Amino acid sequence: MFYIIDILGTIAFAISGVLVALNKRMDAFGILIIAFVTAVGGGTLRDVLIGETPVSWMKDMNYAYLIFGSTVFAVIFRDKIDYLRKSLFLFDTIGIGLYTVLGIEKGISADLHPVICIFLGTMSACFGGVIRDILCNEIPVIFRKEVYATACILGGITYFTVSQLPLITNFVFVISGLVVIIVRLVAVRFKISLPSLYKD
Amino acid sequence: MFYIIDILGTIAFAISGVLVALNKRMDAFGILIIAFVTAVGGGTLRDVLIGETPVSWMKDMNYAYLIFGSTVFAVIFRDKIDYLRKSLFLFDTIGIGLYTVLGIEKGISADLHPVICIFLGTMSACFGGVIRDILCNEIPVIFRKEVYATACILGGITYFTVSQLPLITNFVFVISGLVVIIVRLVAVRFKISLPSLYKD
Amino acid sequence: MFYIIDILGTIAFAISGVLVALNKRMDAFGILIIAFVTAVGGGTLRDVLIGETPVSWMKDMNYAYLIFGSTVFAVIFRDKIDYLRKSLFLFDTIGIGLYTVLGIEKGISADLHPVICIFLGTMSACFGGVIRDILCNEIPVIFRKEVYATACILGGITYFTVSQLPLITNFVFVISGLVVIIVRLVAVRFKISLPSLYKD
Repeated sequence: MFYIIDILGTIAFAISGVLVALNKRMDAFGILIIAFVTAVGGGTLRDVLIGETPVSWMKDMNYAYLIFGSTVFAVIFRDKIDYLRKSLFLFDTIGIGLYTVLGIEKGISADLHPVICIFLGTMSACFGGVIRDILCNEIPVIFRKEVYATACILGGITYFTVSQLPLITNFVFVISGLVVIIVRLVAVRFKISLPSLYKD
Repeated sequence: MFYIIDILGTIAFAISGVLVALNKRMDAFGILIIAFVTAVGGGTLRDVLIGETPVSWMKDMNYAYLIFGSTVFAVIFRDKIDYLRKSLFLFDTIGIGLYTVLGIEKGISADLHPVICIFLGTMSACFGGVIRDILCNEIPVIFRKEVYATACILGGITYFTVSQLPLITNFVFVISGLVVIIVRLVAVRFKISLPSLYKD
Repeated sequence: MFYIIDILGTIAFAISGVLVALNKRMDAFGILIIAFVTAVGGGTLRDVLIGETPVSWMKDMNYAYLIFGSTVFAVIFRDKIDYLRKSLFLFDTIGIGLYTVLGIEKGISADLHPVICIFLGTMSACFGGVIRDILCNEIPVIFRKEVYATACILGGITYFTVSQLPLITNFVFVISGLVVIIVRLVAVRFKISLPSLYKD
């Protein structure tokens, strides 16, 4: 079950990378690299910072195959991918829910403080997109427009709140992942965003 | 004593991140992340390169609290922060003096060559700002305008020169930190900068 | 023999960094840093991702001296460097051939899958230039224009194909390095590039 979600999240992240790279008129290699870093960048940064190396996608070939397949698919069907936009958004949202909770649990097993664990979870979910935007010479979109990281942080707080209650572990996992997903869906549906704090 | 300097440096770095992020019209999350990477980015890169993981701010929560507090403070008082510009500049300068020497000593304890230690010290002091500028889609300011890194390098050379003399360790620490601070203050006061080497 | 190639490659990479940094009107420190990251960035990223720290240039001072010397040379003779453009291009091409194979062998000794090893080799050869372009606020040139990474990937595939045959190891090393070099030379000579996949 978790594995299927992981697959869907990886596909959604890779395709989002392809779309940005196509827009920047990159060549086939550039597109593949951008798809790759978007899909695995957040988890890689997390693994490097806590010292868990070689990083995880080097030890499980399924990521490489999956990203390669998604990239080829997205390039071939790039004109029709608009029809998939809703599904992709849903995969992506489910993906960040999962990645947030997986990141938190990596932090816990490295004996880190809850605040740092929430940071790691958020980083796992969001920094693939940040690295994608840096490589494409853009200010990272999550720093400006979307309630993306905020959803992850709220999910992380939920995780540590709920894990105080006498519940089974899987339930904690599911409920905090769902908080991430629901916050993001509600925010996008009702066009809620963080204030920019900038004054003219 | 060192701890107070560390606190002042972290505050100054975090606030400098907030000011840049506000200028780029980032949202609250973006501002917090930029403040964070500006404050801890240099030390994080140093720790990752020498393999000291989990990186230090993950093991001492005070950094996270301090950066969060400074960010909230800087956002609330952003209109009045001009009055603090001189104090901030001083904190920042003291901060890079400290970070340079701390970085050098980390390199020494990892048995690295003095030149590499000076590099690590300079990186600890300067690369938070470099990562901040990359995330904000700017050419890093220290590559273009300021005698910032040069001050760190001179402090580092002082460190290894002075440590040849029969002095107590603390004195080496203080004198090389002071070289960083004085070089930077003098350079800014008299508008000294490195030549750009570019010919029209 | 390998050592001489490594020296030529490091010089070529460092000088390519100097030329980009001069164009961006950086000061002396900025130029040196850009030369440094261009020369060692790819190998550093590779070492960090597989957890081989402290990274290699910290343990062998020759890299630092070589890069410093090349930078001083390139800055002094920057007006005349056009005469060297062909030699530099050749050094650079030989360099990526070597770095690709060295990266692959590092991956093999870390017990990684062939596909990941090819990825590591390509990263060793190409990501110095990627980091250089990010620091200079450009979209990395290898994502857009050149058959640079493709040459590395083809060399990597050759490595694993040839190593199935009953040959001595050195021969595998040389033949796959030569594939990288020849593919790049042929592609540049006949102006072959990957399609951009972008439709107007």
